[in-house]
Amino acid sequence: MGYHHIHRYRIAFVDCDPAQIVHFSNYFRWFDTASREFFTACGVPSWRDTERGSGLIGTPLVDAQASFRNPATYGEDIEIESWVDRWSGKSFVMRHVARRGDTVLAEGREVRVFAVRDSVDPPVIRAVAVPAGIRAMCGD
Amino acid sequence: MGYHHIHRYRIAFVDCDPAQIVHFSNYFRWFDTASREFFTACGVPSWRDTERGSGLIGTPLVDAQASFRNPATYGEDIEIESWVDRWSGKSFVMRHVARRGDTVLAEGREVRVFAVRDSVDPPVIRAVAVPAGIRAMCGD
Amino acid sequence: MGYHHIHRYRIAFVDCDPAQIVHFSNYFRWFDTASREFFTACGVPSWRDTERGSGLIGTPLVDAQASFRNPATYGEDIEIESWVDRWSGKSFVMRHVARRGDTVLAEGREVRVFAVRDSVDPPVIRAVAVPAGIRAMCGD
Amino acid sequence: MGYHHIHRYRIAFVDCDPAQIVHFSNYFRWFDTASREFFTACGVPSWRDTERGSGLIGTPLVDAQASFRNPATYGEDIEIESWVDRWSGKSFVMRHVARRGDTVLAEGREVRVFAVRDSVDPPVIRAVAVPAGIRAMCGD
Repeated sequence: MGYHHIHRYRIAFVDCDPAQIVHFSNYFRWFDTASREFFTACGVPSWRDTERGSGLIGTPLVDAQASFRNPATYGEDIEIESWVDRWSGKSFVMRHVARRGDTVLAEGREVRVFAVRDSVDPPVIRAVAVPAGIRAMCGD
Repeated sequence: MGYHHIHRYRIAFVDCDPAQIVHFSNYFRWFDTASREFFTACGVPSWRDTERGSGLIGTPLVDAQASFRNPATYGEDIEIESWVDRWSGKSFVMRHVARRGDTVLAEGREVRVFAVRDSVDPPVIRAVAVPAGIRAMCGD
Repeated sequence: MGYHHIHRYRIAFVDCDPAQIVHFSNYFRWFDTASREFFTACGVPSWRDTERGSGLIGTPLVDAQASFRNPATYGEDIEIESWVDRWSGKSFVMRHVARRGDTVLAEGREVRVFAVRDSVDPPVIRAVAVPAGIRAMCGD
Repeated sequence: MGYHHIHRYRIAFVDCDPAQIVHFSNYFRWFDTASREFFTACGVPSWRDTERGSGLIGTPLVDAQASFRNPATYGEDIEIESWVDRWSGKSFVMRHVARRGDTVLAEGREVRVFAVRDSVDPPVIRAVAVPAGIRAMCGD
């Protein structure tokens, strides 16, 4: 079983909307941050470093989905559990669960690819095969 | 066939990330804005007004999904086409397509409910049946 | 001397712009969050609670200013030190310093008032005198 | 007298906070966007293009300040008027006024420099003299 990462965050006032609850789009931001923190915890260098080496600029999304189970608001401490659910040749699936204590707030699923820059302007990027080295670092 | 709304936006520098392309989470924000603009174009009052009347505070999301087809960057003008794909008793499905000229950038699907406030603190909200009056305003 | 609060944060990918550094506007967001965390650390209840009690909805800004000393990027851990520099009858001045280790990244100054809601729609708010109880909680 | 640019925007739901008004940090984002739109209107190419040519990556901020005069909320149409108030050797001052009709919502002042990249990682940037060509394009 692959690595599961826990990312902790306290919800900020600015994350909440006029309904006084977290604006759903922030879950996508937090899942994205949790995804990068997952790689950091596995020892994968920053995308700045990988760009200079192998050319990798990151793991852009092909698809993102989330279900929102319970509202949350500012001042609350949440945990986001993240893991790779599936690796395939050119993409991988990350899953995230945001919880406040035992309460599930949101569940997310991201399909990501590893990408390199294809040209500078307009910034065209191109998917490459999942690097075996990174996959191994993530405990697969 | 229901109403289709076009929301226009010029991508800003701050919308783009270190990969120099739009951060995907912004599409969810823009789809959310396009959804509210859809209702505005149909004549639905602001949620501030509806809260004072029927208690409706808006249309929080139960589920959101988007596929990202092509990258975009700042200074580019995009259009988001939005419509209600399906109404059911307690929820409805909105669809959005973001385009730059003829190029599809992203496609989104949101499941939303109409909600009222159930208590003040913690801010608990509760789904209500889709109001027939709003549904009629939206050309269904 | 009043209380000084330290707010810790790891910079996220989405906080950075195409120049690959933190977009300056995020410092204003983090200073705002640090300001609320300052009050929380002093024992001031959430603005949701104070609104139900005394009517206070928060501490909106009258003026904000920041100087940006050094760039920072994602994955870096920063600390924001926050304190009240001056209390006056109807407003107060908060100061913030963001640091990465010993390096000052940004310094901010906010002039804030305590506000209550004056009407519901359009949402008009009104400054009130600085509550003596809150001022006392903050060690002044 | 230099060029004055008008940037138009309709405030979005996600721009507003639990006090149901625009979170002040968004004015800084909008002023930043208005600043780039100012240069675009003057004929200055995107920073992607200038980076490939002269190396310029943009106009990072050294200092930003804003005063908040009146609250605003979502669905409202605003205009931001922007101009260069002063050019000096290594920096320039932009001013912005955000208005809803005749009501001034916020006034901003930014001190910016033109910058080039000094190294790739960590992303160090360096101020350069204000390019005479750009200054001339902006009607000075």
